[in-house]
This record gives sequence, C-alpha cells and structure tokens, in this order.
Amino acid sequence: MNDLKHYLEQVQQIFDREVFLASPRELYEPIDYTLRLGGKRIRPTLLLAAGAMFGADEALLRDAALGIETFHNFTLLHDDLMDRSPLRRGKPTVYTKWGDNAAILSGDTMYALAWRYFLRQPSPRLQEILQCFNETAIEVCEGQQKDMNFEELPLEKVSLDDYRDMIRQKTAVLLAGALKIGGLYANAPQHELDNLWNFGIHLGLAFQLQDDLLDGYGDTAVFGKKTGQDIRDNKKTFLPLLAIKHCNTEQSKALSTLFAAKDNMDEEEKVGRVMALYDAIDLRSKLEEHIKAEFQKAQKHLDDIKVPEERKLPLRELMETLNGRKK
Amino acid sequence: MNDLKHYLEQVQQIFDREVFLASPRELYEPIDYTLRLGGKRIRPTLLLAAGAMFGADEALLRDAALGIETFHNFTLLHDDLMDRSPLRRGKPTVYTKWGDNAAILSGDTMYALAWRYFLRQPSPRLQEILQCFNETAIEVCEGQQKDMNFEELPLEKVSLDDYRDMIRQKTAVLLAGALKIGGLYANAPQHELDNLWNFGIHLGLAFQLQDDLLDGYGDTAVFGKKTGQDIRDNKKTFLPLLAIKHCNTEQSKALSTLFAAKDNMDEEEKVGRVMALYDAIDLRSKLEEHIKAEFQKAQKHLDDIKVPEERKLPLRELMETLNGRKK
Repeated sequence: MNDLKHYLEQVQQIFDREVFLASPRELYEPIDYTLRLGGKRIRPTLLLAAGAMFGADEALLRDAALGIETFHNFTLLHDDLMDRSPLRRGKPTVYTKWGDNAAILSGDTMYALAWRYFLRQPSPRLQEILQCFNETAIEVCEGQQKDMNFEELPLEKVSLDDYRDMIRQKTAVLLAGALKIGGLYANAPQHELDNLWNFGIHLGLAFQLQDDLLDGYGDTAVFGKKTGQDIRDNKKTFLPLLAIKHCNTEQSKALSTLFAAKDNMDEEEKVGRVMALYDAIDLRSKLEEHIKAEFQKAQKHLDDIKVPEERKLPLRELMETLNGRKK
Repeated sequence: MNDLKHYLEQVQQIFDREVFLASPRELYEPIDYTLRLGGKRIRPTLLLAAGAMFGADEALLRDAALGIETFHNFTLLHDDLMDRSPLRRGKPTVYTKWGDNAAILSGDTMYALAWRYFLRQPSPRLQEILQCFNETAIEVCEGQQKDMNFEELPLEKVSLDDYRDMIRQKTAVLLAGALKIGGLYANAPQHELDNLWNFGIHLGLAFQLQDDLLDGYGDTAVFGKKTGQDIRDNKKTFLPLLAIKHCNTEQSKALSTLFAAKDNMDEEEKVGRVMALYDAIDLRSKLEEHIKAEFQKAQKHLDDIKVPEERKLPLRELMETLNGRKK
C-alpha cells in the first residue's frame, strides 16, 4: 500500500508538470506565481488519499486534486487583498506585486480554472461531485464574510460557537469537501462519505485552532514568522475568545480594552500584556485540550471507516503530522 | 408558438420569484441589490428561446437562465470595481455603496451561486453544458484583461483586429454560450449548436459596436446618459480605432494626441474636437456599415438553422429589437 509520502510526491509532481502560463500574460503570470508558491498542499493530498482508500483510479483523481488546490489558492489570493496582507508564504502577495485589479481578475480566473480541472474527467457521480465542490465554495465565502464581520465587533460580542461556526465554514469544509470528493470518485457508500466529511471537519477545526495557538505560542525560529500578529491586528481568534471565558471581571475588562485599542498603545507592550494575561489563566493548556478533542473526534470518524487498516495509513500519517506541527 | 414577449416575461417572472437574500446579510444584500437592478436580461432570454426552439422543456431551462444572468451580473460587479465606475443602470455600484471588500466577496459568491443554479438540473449532456459555461467564463476574464491592457497602450498600437478579438471574448462569447447551452439542453445536433454559437458571436459583436456608436452618437434623452464618456476616459473603442484608419496624417496625429491627453484639456472641448474629427471623415456611417455587416452575419446563421420558421420568431424579434436600439 501507498504511504503519505507517496501522495505528497504525487501532488508535487502534478503541480510541477502542469502549465499555468497562457495569454494574456498579465492575467496568467499572477496565477502561475500563486500556484507555484507551494504550501502544504493538504487538500489535494486528502483528495488523492481518500479516493485511493476506496479504490479510485489515481489518474482519474489528478484533475480534481489540481482543481481543489487551485480553488484554495484563489481564496487566499482574494483574502490577502481584502485583508491587505503584504506577504504569503514569505513572498509578496499578488496585489502588492501587480496591483488590486490584477488580484481581482486573476483570482476570478483561477476560480474558473479550478472548474476547468473538475470538468475534465467524467464520473457517474459528476453532478454530486460538482455540487459538493460548489456548496463548499459558498460556505468558504460565507465564512470569510463572518470573519470580516467579527472584525467590527467588540470581543465580548463574539461567542465561541460563532467563532467555531466561522472557522468550520472558512477552513474545515474545504478539507471535508476534498475528502468527500475523493470518496465520490471511488463511488464510496453514503455512510463512508459522511465519515470522510466529518473526519475533514474535525481535522480542519483542529488545524485552525492550531493556527491560533501558534500565533501566540509558536517558536518564531520554526514558525517562520513573528508571533503575536493576531494580537497586533486585534483579531478575535479562539485565544482571546476562550480567554475571556476564564477571566475574572477585572481581567476580562482589561482584555476587552486591549483588543479594542487602536494605535494608542505600543504594539509590543500590548502583545506582552495580552500574553501575560493568557499565561495567568493557563490558556495554552486549555486550548491544547480543545485541539486534542478535535483530533480525537477526527480520529473516531477515520476509525469508523470500514476498509482494511493499511488503507487508512496515509490519512493517519497526515493527521499525526498535523497533530505535531510546529508551523 | 411563443413570441419574444413570452420569453421576456418568463425571465422577469423567474427573477421576481427567486430569493437571493440569505445569511450573513452583509454578503447577500449586495447580491440581491445587483440581481434586482434589472437590465435587458438578454442572456437568459437567448438561453430560453434557443432551448425552446429545439424543443427543450422550459422548466428545465429556468435554472440555467438564472445561472447565466447571475454570472453576467457578477462580471459587471467586479468590472465596475476594477474600472471604478460609480453608476450601473443609474444606481450606485456595489463598491461605492458597500466598499471594495464587499464587492470582491459578494462577486465571488455570485459566481458560486451561478454554478449552484447550473448544477440544480440533471441533463444527459451536463458535462458539455458546464464546460461550455466555464470556457465562456474564462474567455470573459481574458477579454476583460485585454480591455485593461488596451488602456495602457497608445491609440495607434491597438489594431481593429485586436479590438474585435477583445469584444468577442468580453461580450460576444457569453451571448453565444447562452444560446449554445439552450441548444445543449434540447440535445440539438452539433451543426445547429455551431449555428447558435455563431449567431451569438455576431449578435454580440453588433451589440458591442452599437454600444460604441451610442456613446458618440446616442440621443442623450433616450440613451439615458451623457454621450462622449468613452472620449473623456480615453477609451480605445471601435470609434477612434476605425477613425484612425480613415484619417489623413494630420488628422491621425491630432486624434492620437487627443486620446493621449490626460487632465490637461477641458473635457467638453476635447469631446467636441474628437466628434468634429469623426464627422469630417463621416465615421458614423462607416461604423453603421460594420454593425449592419455583423447583424447580417448573425442572421445568416439563424437562417441556416433547420427548424420551422415560426420557431425562430423570438430570436428574430430579439435581433430586430437590438438592431433598432437607441439605448
């Protein structure tokens, strides 16, 4: 049987061999740039591994793998523009390099290219596959809107449930969709599609909560970027939202004030004060418990899938890799 | 048989009955606003009429009609943002009303909603239908990029062929795609799909050239907006590109200079000078010849379609309406 390394190499090869440049070059250069920035390529890896687990022909899955990653990179491109993020994977973002209009139009085109990949291969379940992809895409948009809405709200107006719902839509459903689409190509039965989906949801939630944790507690040398950026940006991640539930009245007031502060406090002093508050209530171990719980739920759904254990190996390896990730 | 009025009413009804508002409202309000601004609804009308001409069930076509118009309105929304156009159909554009980020994200979501409509109905030719829609979408993006590229070039560097290729992609292919998709739902034979496609291409070219003509020669009272805007914006439409081919050296130099002028000349004086130059070479009648030629080519493809003449009535009526349009 194939291991995780096999699928990671497959994905690498698929992207290395694909030509993204076309005419007019002003449109396709930012697309080629974006799709060659790399990244973890988790979604296409999940799609290939889930499809193969149920016996789908690997060649049949390659275009869908390209499609799901192209879509994901399109969302990053537009998100970076909306969030005015100057860097992505340590490189200038498309809007900083080519301007806002190039980011808008090249993004739109990437979305259409994602569809071109999905439409290349026939499947008896094509309509279901495309519906799964499309409903996932709509949820990603809704999640991004909710994320932007949270920016306008004070800390105490965003509940943990609201936040979990937002990251489910913005991050988790696309992992779930990638897995389910793999299963659909293999014509897996409905209850196994549900297991794949739910495995992806909890894996995605764990993944996003890790992101939040790493922003506060990551090792800068390994993490590859400065910690505390979410604090500087007043971002209502799981960290302050969980913190506020464990604060006493005085701490809670202090935290709300710190997260409402705009340009009237030294940034590093603010990061230091917030982190001291987190440490006072032992926030790190509390968040780690939440992450562990999501990984356990994900694992339960993977356990429930009725295929020989060796076929689950790549997804188990991927989950373990993510579980231990430091960046 | 049904006439054009029947299909226009059908389209009106389809949009009146559809609910576009959903949660989160910050995402869906701009979508509802955009899709309720009205407009000519040419693309869904073409889709319904073409499908019915070959005997497709009208109920089956309704979702595709919604899909093609939703996609078209998504492209207008993003184009207005990129072009910084303050008004659309006499109303404030989405970015002026809700900001750039709302325009980006609501536009992306409209694109996904267009797919949701297309994916609602089954069809034995679904993959072809969706490929036709998607390849059309990619051409629209490429056309928009070429349009933006032209803005950076001096007048004499854009050929009439380049311009025709740009408006074919930006405008004509979506009309052609709407017609072909209607034909695909009716399982029309390949040569009739080609006729539908080519009818749409030439109808679309005629339509865009009319737009260019109306900007220069429209009756402001009927046209609904001030003429000469393309001149003020230094837009390389068919008018100056055709003019430069009929100018003597002196006129040609004057026109190039006028279209390169930025903020250093009174706008109305500039419009007056350009229009005087157009009149001196009788540009209006020359452009009218080009438009007539495109309508004739369109008509030839409609004539070639082998269905009873009465079935072609709505598309002939639509062509006549567009042919005589004053706005």
